[in-house]
Amino acid sequence: MNFDPIFTAAQEAFLFYKNVPGKEKGAFLETLAEILESNRAEIVPLAVKESNLPEGRINGELGRTTGQIRLFANMVKEGSWVEATIDPADPSRTPLPKADIRRFLTPLGPVIVFGASNFPLAFSTAGGDTISALAAGCPVIYKAHPAHPETSKKVADCIHQAILKAGFPSALFTHIEGGIAEGQALVKHPIAKAVAFTGSHVGGKALFDLANQREEPIPVYAEMGSVNPIFTFPKKLEKENDALAKAFIASLTLGVGQFCTNPGLIFVPEAQAKEFEKAITTELNDIASAPMLHPGIAQAYYDSIQYFQSREELRWVKVADPKHLINGSTALAEIKASSWLKDPVFQKEVFGAFAMMVVYQSQDELLEITKKLHGQLTITVWADAEELQNQLFLLNLLEEKCGRLLFKGVPTGVEVGFAMQHGGPYPSTTSAHGTSVGAHAIKRFARPIAFQDMPQDLLPDALRDDNPLGIWRLVNGGFTK
Amino acid sequence: MNFDPIFTAAQEAFLFYKNVPGKEKGAFLETLAEILESNRAEIVPLAVKESNLPEGRINGELGRTTGQIRLFANMVKEGSWVEATIDPADPSRTPLPKADIRRFLTPLGPVIVFGASNFPLAFSTAGGDTISALAAGCPVIYKAHPAHPETSKKVADCIHQAILKAGFPSALFTHIEGGIAEGQALVKHPIAKAVAFTGSHVGGKALFDLANQREEPIPVYAEMGSVNPIFTFPKKLEKENDALAKAFIASLTLGVGQFCTNPGLIFVPEAQAKEFEKAITTELNDIASAPMLHPGIAQAYYDSIQYFQSREELRWVKVADPKHLINGSTALAEIKASSWLKDPVFQKEVFGAFAMMVVYQSQDELLEITKKLHGQLTITVWADAEELQNQLFLLNLLEEKCGRLLFKGVPTGVEVGFAMQHGGPYPSTTSAHGTSVGAHAIKRFARPIAFQDMPQDLLPDALRDDNPLGIWRLVNGGFTK
Repeated sequence: MNFDPIFTAAQEAFLFYKNVPGKEKGAFLETLAEILESNRAEIVPLAVKESNLPEGRINGELGRTTGQIRLFANMVKEGSWVEATIDPADPSRTPLPKADIRRFLTPLGPVIVFGASNFPLAFSTAGGDTISALAAGCPVIYKAHPAHPETSKKVADCIHQAILKAGFPSALFTHIEGGIAEGQALVKHPIAKAVAFTGSHVGGKALFDLANQREEPIPVYAEMGSVNPIFTFPKKLEKENDALAKAFIASLTLGVGQFCTNPGLIFVPEAQAKEFEKAITTELNDIASAPMLHPGIAQAYYDSIQYFQSREELRWVKVADPKHLINGSTALAEIKASSWLKDPVFQKEVFGAFAMMVVYQSQDELLEITKKLHGQLTITVWADAEELQNQLFLLNLLEEKCGRLLFKGVPTGVEVGFAMQHGGPYPSTTSAHGTSVGAHAIKRFARPIAFQDMPQDLLPDALRDDNPLGIWRLVNGGFTK
Repeated sequence: MNFDPIFTAAQEAFLFYKNVPGKEKGAFLETLAEILESNRAEIVPLAVKESNLPEGRINGELGRTTGQIRLFANMVKEGSWVEATIDPADPSRTPLPKADIRRFLTPLGPVIVFGASNFPLAFSTAGGDTISALAAGCPVIYKAHPAHPETSKKVADCIHQAILKAGFPSALFTHIEGGIAEGQALVKHPIAKAVAFTGSHVGGKALFDLANQREEPIPVYAEMGSVNPIFTFPKKLEKENDALAKAFIASLTLGVGQFCTNPGLIFVPEAQAKEFEKAITTELNDIASAPMLHPGIAQAYYDSIQYFQSREELRWVKVADPKHLINGSTALAEIKASSWLKDPVFQKEVFGAFAMMVVYQSQDELLEITKKLHGQLTITVWADAEELQNQLFLLNLLEEKCGRLLFKGVPTGVEVGFAMQHGGPYPSTTSAHGTSVGAHAIKRFARPIAFQDMPQDLLPDALRDDNPLGIWRLVNGGFTK
């Protein structure tokens, strides 16, 4: 594997592309969204075939993908995302005159993106990581996920059509097929400036370690999933037992549980546990098993279930039935909080529709749970307004453990917007400062640079006195447009 | 070394302090600035004695320190730094209603700060790292630099006076004395959430590796210095030979060269090299040797000079004279670009007043130099307006290699403001996304969190509908106040 020519071309493409005006970058992304949509009839059946996901879901995911692309297109066309900051000169300052200093975000350079198996479109070839990197100004070297090679190739073709139409260098995007060795070689290449990954903890952590061992360490934005606990409280459960059970099971089993944000852990007060269990048992009856993404994922799912079956602390409400090795059949087990607290293995994510219902007895137990809880993408709190007022200290602790804290609804269904944070403390990600969903995702692929006393005609448009882009800027400490 | 009680107390202090309103955090910081100033008569002589730096410099540094404190005090009193972002709900959206999502920056938790030897005040106990962490809402566990223990203790006392006056828990700031073992134990402690460091490459890289090997890796913001090259061009040199030589030598030798941004490398065109060398030789005559920070630093300086004296490629304009082991005597050597390009050791920072003057013959050589150049805190370009127009490609490359690009003046004298970027690509720092000087330094110690459908009365003030803090917020993608 000699990736030198690919990286050299990407670096050359970078030195051109980083200076392309935001309006042109945005137009290029919009073209890509159009091309993807006009290829819907080809893309969707490929992704359905390779992911086992239903057509409705894949159709929706393509819409989500183009929606994301348009969000970033609009952001870079508008331009304020670069955080332009201007401290004007003051030649009359004593004892020393003050220099003119201007700062903005500049793209990192060529970056590596790894595709995710569970989102063959929205977190793969033209997914959130690729698009936020391209929007920031970084060429992307994309390592296709081996679970959906045809889909990936087809989407890569669409990206190259858009590049061609924009007149940009084709090395702006490179599609690499291969396995672990190829992925490692990409991350090790000296020209690579960052890595984005969505997938398992083992995979993400390995890339993180590899990137830190480079002669020049580079940031790894690995979103490695979590168990996304739901904390439930007595009054809320008493009032909405059936509706909450229904919402929980629907979120747990959505897409055969193959979401980074599906709730694999629910904390239920002892007095309400029996009623809640009854309601979820009813709900579980309606859930048919369905094919998982690929046999490897199904195998891993059943292996984990089998391990947990060996643990006496668990009482099974429903046991997964591995009669079809590809099908993911929902599983649910109950455990006492006192047992759960004793072994961190009970916090391990099982990718698929498995959840643990942890029955707690007291407020003290809840606090202990929270203190021991690992970092999460999301935590959901189901409590009455009155109960919440009694849980302010707990909420204060819960904030420390997640990237998104929900008070209604379920953690699945991650909104793509400006305020979304899809990331969280380790081990849910390797960088709690980043998000892989929403507008702020672009910031992962840019770094600040300051220009001191740069002549006006050389300054990037974002930093010129006359603000030709009409963007929001922090001038002398105040926002202005 | 059992640091558990210290960290447990710091974590408790954190859970209180993170919710303290910005106005109170700001008032606390202002009190600290006042206390430091009222202790000037005690602090300055201590720092002079322990650093060998002249009184004028230390007096100025105390002013810089309180200036920094007031900048962060004003920022947290104003409050917009938290990047409040609100995507309002849309219950009527189809097919699914849109949740209310609000995002802001929340402090990380207890952080470790390592003091720097070369700034006993401005980058030490109450220096930029400590203050930006406290401003963000993080308790600080501070590892004092062994070169100035008395100064450090005195400043720590001032911080505790300010904490007492504010009525905050004393564990908000903990002063730790010790060596490498203590430093490592602090970084390894599971409650620590980030590390800030200013110092040598060896020290910073060791902490970075240690933090990444933790069970929960944490970010390390290590500012490890650089050689801060100056690129000079023929016309500019012809016109301003003597003034530029004077500026270069003044910047090189300021504070006995003990600044992270002192220019240890200057690229000079062959045709102008002789005249420039003549002028710097004249300037060097006026520079008296002066005591370095401590004997260890002086020893390391002379060891490096000795190594470079063994390299035949260098022709010495002035050789350092180690007759007083504590004094740092300026040294300057010339080398051909073709030789310089052959060995990366010529890019190694020598902490002290040593510079290499690299004589280049052609534009091609300059481009090759730029491509091979390691990441820098600063790069300075001395060129005529006309010459700059011919160097656009070179400038494009130089941007990739630094955190701050200067077109006038010298890299020493880092302005504390909103637009300053004091950081840069590896190996100058371990995180090119961070800055250790200026307003943005606060962002290193906070991470984003999103609240979904959180009841109004539980939301932090920064995110409430009525914007009680009157801060700038991104609402539905547009800035508003």
